[in-house]
Amino acid sequence: MGSSFGTVFRVSTFGESHGVGVGAIVDGCPAQLEISLEAIQAQADRRKPGQSDLTTQRMEADTVEILSGVQNGKTLGTPIGLLVRNTDQRPGDYDETLDAPRPSHADYTYLKKYGVRAKSGGGRASARETAARVAAGALAEQYLQQLCGVDIVAWVSQVGAIGSEVDVGTVSRADVDSRAVRCPDHAAADKMEARIREVRDEGDSIGGILTCVCRNVPAGWGEPIFDKAEALLAQAMLSIPACKAFEIGSGFAGSQLRGSQHNDPFTSGDDTNLGTSTNNSGGVQGGITNGMPIVFRAAFKPPATIKCAQETVNYAGQPVTLQVTEGRHDPCVVPRAVPIVESMAALVLADLARQA
Amino acid sequence: MGSSFGTVFRVSTFGESHGVGVGAIVDGCPAQLEISLEAIQAQADRRKPGQSDLTTQRMEADTVEILSGVQNGKTLGTPIGLLVRNTDQRPGDYDETLDAPRPSHADYTYLKKYGVRAKSGGGRASARETAARVAAGALAEQYLQQLCGVDIVAWVSQVGAIGSEVDVGTVSRADVDSRAVRCPDHAAADKMEARIREVRDEGDSIGGILTCVCRNVPAGWGEPIFDKAEALLAQAMLSIPACKAFEIGSGFAGSQLRGSQHNDPFTSGDDTNLGTSTNNSGGVQGGITNGMPIVFRAAFKPPATIKCAQETVNYAGQPVTLQVTEGRHDPCVVPRAVPIVESMAALVLADLARQA
Amino acid sequence: MGSSFGTVFRVSTFGESHGVGVGAIVDGCPAQLEISLEAIQAQADRRKPGQSDLTTQRMEADTVEILSGVQNGKTLGTPIGLLVRNTDQRPGDYDETLDAPRPSHADYTYLKKYGVRAKSGGGRASARETAARVAAGALAEQYLQQLCGVDIVAWVSQVGAIGSEVDVGTVSRADVDSRAVRCPDHAAADKMEARIREVRDEGDSIGGILTCVCRNVPAGWGEPIFDKAEALLAQAMLSIPACKAFEIGSGFAGSQLRGSQHNDPFTSGDDTNLGTSTNNSGGVQGGITNGMPIVFRAAFKPPATIKCAQETVNYAGQPVTLQVTEGRHDPCVVPRAVPIVESMAALVLADLARQA
Amino acid sequence: MGSSFGTVFRVSTFGESHGVGVGAIVDGCPAQLEISLEAIQAQADRRKPGQSDLTTQRMEADTVEILSGVQNGKTLGTPIGLLVRNTDQRPGDYDETLDAPRPSHADYTYLKKYGVRAKSGGGRASARETAARVAAGALAEQYLQQLCGVDIVAWVSQVGAIGSEVDVGTVSRADVDSRAVRCPDHAAADKMEARIREVRDEGDSIGGILTCVCRNVPAGWGEPIFDKAEALLAQAMLSIPACKAFEIGSGFAGSQLRGSQHNDPFTSGDDTNLGTSTNNSGGVQGGITNGMPIVFRAAFKPPATIKCAQETVNYAGQPVTLQVTEGRHDPCVVPRAVPIVESMAALVLADLARQA
Repeated sequence: MGSSFGTVFRVSTFGESHGVGVGAIVDGCPAQLEISLEAIQAQADRRKPGQSDLTTQRMEADTVEILSGVQNGKTLGTPIGLLVRNTDQRPGDYDETLDAPRPSHADYTYLKKYGVRAKSGGGRASARETAARVAAGALAEQYLQQLCGVDIVAWVSQVGAIGSEVDVGTVSRADVDSRAVRCPDHAAADKMEARIREVRDEGDSIGGILTCVCRNVPAGWGEPIFDKAEALLAQAMLSIPACKAFEIGSGFAGSQLRGSQHNDPFTSGDDTNLGTSTNNSGGVQGGITNGMPIVFRAAFKPPATIKCAQETVNYAGQPVTLQVTEGRHDPCVVPRAVPIVESMAALVLADLARQA
Repeated sequence: MGSSFGTVFRVSTFGESHGVGVGAIVDGCPAQLEISLEAIQAQADRRKPGQSDLTTQRMEADTVEILSGVQNGKTLGTPIGLLVRNTDQRPGDYDETLDAPRPSHADYTYLKKYGVRAKSGGGRASARETAARVAAGALAEQYLQQLCGVDIVAWVSQVGAIGSEVDVGTVSRADVDSRAVRCPDHAAADKMEARIREVRDEGDSIGGILTCVCRNVPAGWGEPIFDKAEALLAQAMLSIPACKAFEIGSGFAGSQLRGSQHNDPFTSGDDTNLGTSTNNSGGVQGGITNGMPIVFRAAFKPPATIKCAQETVNYAGQPVTLQVTEGRHDPCVVPRAVPIVESMAALVLADLARQA
Repeated sequence: MGSSFGTVFRVSTFGESHGVGVGAIVDGCPAQLEISLEAIQAQADRRKPGQSDLTTQRMEADTVEILSGVQNGKTLGTPIGLLVRNTDQRPGDYDETLDAPRPSHADYTYLKKYGVRAKSGGGRASARETAARVAAGALAEQYLQQLCGVDIVAWVSQVGAIGSEVDVGTVSRADVDSRAVRCPDHAAADKMEARIREVRDEGDSIGGILTCVCRNVPAGWGEPIFDKAEALLAQAMLSIPACKAFEIGSGFAGSQLRGSQHNDPFTSGDDTNLGTSTNNSGGVQGGITNGMPIVFRAAFKPPATIKCAQETVNYAGQPVTLQVTEGRHDPCVVPRAVPIVESMAALVLADLARQA
Repeated sequence: MGSSFGTVFRVSTFGESHGVGVGAIVDGCPAQLEISLEAIQAQADRRKPGQSDLTTQRMEADTVEILSGVQNGKTLGTPIGLLVRNTDQRPGDYDETLDAPRPSHADYTYLKKYGVRAKSGGGRASARETAARVAAGALAEQYLQQLCGVDIVAWVSQVGAIGSEVDVGTVSRADVDSRAVRCPDHAAADKMEARIREVRDEGDSIGGILTCVCRNVPAGWGEPIFDKAEALLAQAMLSIPACKAFEIGSGFAGSQLRGSQHNDPFTSGDDTNLGTSTNNSGGVQGGITNGMPIVFRAAFKPPATIKCAQETVNYAGQPVTLQVTEGRHDPCVVPRAVPIVESMAALVLADLARQA
């Protein structure tokens, strides 16, 4: 269970890193929508491994194939099947002879849940599963763009303790992609890239934070109570491997403020909508969008796969020293997480749009 | 839509602050479970208004009534209906003559969604709805306790900028309830209570943070991909009115660490489970519980209702000065949020338990 | 589980015959809809016991109370809570000393599922639960009427082997209610009523068939594949206690025809729609409505509660003679099933309308 | 929407007859189950076209490919992806120049729903979609067999007006497959096969009825209220293209009986279960299985595609004579519907088993 997301615009993913491939089925996408496979592939390319020396050197084509639901470049209203074949099969992912669960990986918890001893949950807990989400999310983005020009941009706003300054009103994907680390603040990006290379060379890893803005989202999207826009965004982000935290608008910092400082006064806005002069709400009030940009942040832990020796125990509870020697791991996941965060945001918004 | 939560153990809430009452239907609760209405009422009492001078002085009995699904103190396996009648009807909540949307309230967004001009979404966005969640969550807790002794404790860990030190391994609800502010660190509680009285006396409000620990949760609960334990907890918390942020385990701070610092080495544990020597994971790895305590934090903004004058605009976009003169509002929501956070955590865990 | 029905317009029922009452929560009903409690009550009255000498003589007021979601006669867009209190509490329904499961009742199967020995599944399998469905369905009807004038009429078309002739194009609820047996063909109704009195006087019971027509349903409602209009109608009907069969359009008889006889040729229709010259399809093609009247039939078995002696075994497997002496049971359920069938049809159509 | 079925054991299908292929994703299948691809292929082969002169002469390999969720012959507990590639692409299915909607096909209703003018809903309403269901259902059968030896057998019990006599207690798939028409009563089969050849040679088609028995289903499966076993079976059957009617146990005929004739007296059964001496209930009481064989019937209309000339109108409402000249259509769908009915029954039972 748990492989589906959304109520009306609903995505289900399948596939493991060691099998035929990973894929997604999107049900509830309107008919007669124009679909660009190129635009989907472009987002998939931003996620794929091997893009720079900051990410894993593993190469994978990550070619997205449309299995169903689209004909002559238009949606049929039927489920859209998307498949990304595995070309680098990694048989080691399903290695039952694995002696010890790797610290802070899902090896141990999948064993307890499914009774299967396997790396990365037999390849399902592998970050590779997110290739399917990115394809589905890129599709959702096309729906949102055609519906009302929704514009979603995520970027790396922090690596380790290195922060950055970015204008949420104007930042574009071109700005973000101008740097390998995907931080559009160049001074910060210099430091971030140096830091990632440093931890990489030490066989270690480092965490980071992404910020995401969704512009041109109309007021009135979101379901009250359990499916508040911010609640679904929180679920969506925490469902990404390695994500440990989420905040919207003022977030944790806002909890230190007084109401007189935090409230967002309304302004006259445009013909049909009011605006607000500040945006501590982050674009949502009471779970429903207010027409202001949705701004949120998601924190990612340092990747659990490191080359440093680790003192741990094996499945029998006996002390062992674990030393991973093979290479090809990401020293920092946040650059490649950018399209994943954007895609999950798009999936949330597409589903809320269908219920608005 | 969006008034239901959970896949197998599933709660649906209904009711507005101005009508007959608020309630919840819980479907998917096993048969033959012993139910204590007293225990449910005890949690409801911890949420109800008027408990101390730190909260609103409005009085509401918040008596929980079981409508169905329980007979002779045992569940039947059928849907359990729970009702909390309104005794303080607040007709003003549904005041169509309201001229201006209150800043950072849901007045404006509900209007955009439903076309209805009303305070607090006609009383549905009112915090009163959480009375239903607390009743349902208290029921979920009884299931979890009888199943495997799950123990959930939340407390106020920060008010404004005032932090606290609490031992997550031993803290109890009795400790928490020993202080009106529900912070078991007495030195911190002194400062927090003083701060809340100060902002209250100034007609202002203040935000805060809750920490919650879930102990005795077995390894193996949680669904991979979209329904990860941490993802559902994030959704659950962000679905609480005024919650703006969530983090599990090391959270935002963990994103500054290196993998060699952040990874939780395994230890021999007990007969059937491994443990970990640190708990940066916060009790979950890859979306599935690992048997360690689940620890998370949720941040709440300062209440939007303040007595200070606010410069804003009315629905027509014309500048107005908004000055709320009536009283009886919470200057800080976190003390009363304690049972709400515990209840939402219980609803998440009960649903995962039913799928384990 | 299984207490909810619908994807977007979604009803959840709760309550047992021996407790506080039965009720329903309707989520997904649009805001700003005008609601007549009188119209809801009128349908509830058509279902309630004691309407004529053909039905049980038990008296129950069946007063519908709106708990939430409606204010000043209009829906808020929030969940609508409906409650029908029990006034005739029937404690015997939950009689653990019951020695033998009653033949063709749910006593035995509920025991196997829930481990609870109780009459009528502790009162949940009681037909009383349908009072909640009728209230929710009457609400759905008001939505459908305001949306596009949908008109749903069911009637008793057969009792035992006694059939009838009714014009599906013109039959009205007034016609149906002109007879206690709810068959608008008076000659047939005479025979049906006589038959029911006859079996009643012999302490026996008899089955029957309902036909239902839904007029003014636009073309284009229904989801392909699993949620075809006819599939959801079939589920809806078979979910009614005692219903054993469903057919739409030509149904079982149509399976004897050739394609050249069965196909419905298109006709020019009106400005925006084509019609068909015959309606063997029953208003649906490929799971989607075609604008012609939806016509279906549902068969109900004879009530299992009879006064005749029955040779059966007790829970221990030992032969016993079961003789029910208390009275007040329906000798034939179909007259009271009329508003239940209409309500379930309305719930299906309202859900499809919300997805159209 | 509507492309998913089931609550816990949940299948989602995708694909059109003219694209890459059709497929299914099965979520909620337990881990560590042994999966035989051969057994899945065997069921797929029973559905595929070209098996005898009674069915379409179109040839399609219908090779089932497992995309995910199975490793080394065992399920991983993750979603199982199944793909059946199209080898006979039929571009004509998506022919926008189609002038007139074919009578009793889904051409017109899909146009009204999706705004797309295409044969067979762009290939989604094509019976080809059922290839995905059969693959998923064959998987569900393996789960049910390993769980408790559930044995599902369907057969053709009527073609046109030609009925048959079959022993539901002993009939096997080998018996069924001994005849091209899949009726194990040889005398009846002779007549059925002759009738099908006769209508085929006249360019016409004919309807028929399938009966299905599910043996070894334990008592206690099924959810009360809306997800009764019989309600889900009804939905499942009516969701199959061309199915117009469903009945369980005594069905329509039972509505003519008296309670004293219809009630199934209990018998001592075996060590853990009671039995019943008759089975008018068809294996379910109050929506829950009682341990007796589940027996139901499903009626299929004659295929809408015939070679006879048909007087109808085009999309503009103008009279046209429609004459289909190309061949390769099934004159009667029921022989090939046998594995589809079995598969849908298996999907229902697997889902109920997971909730039992």
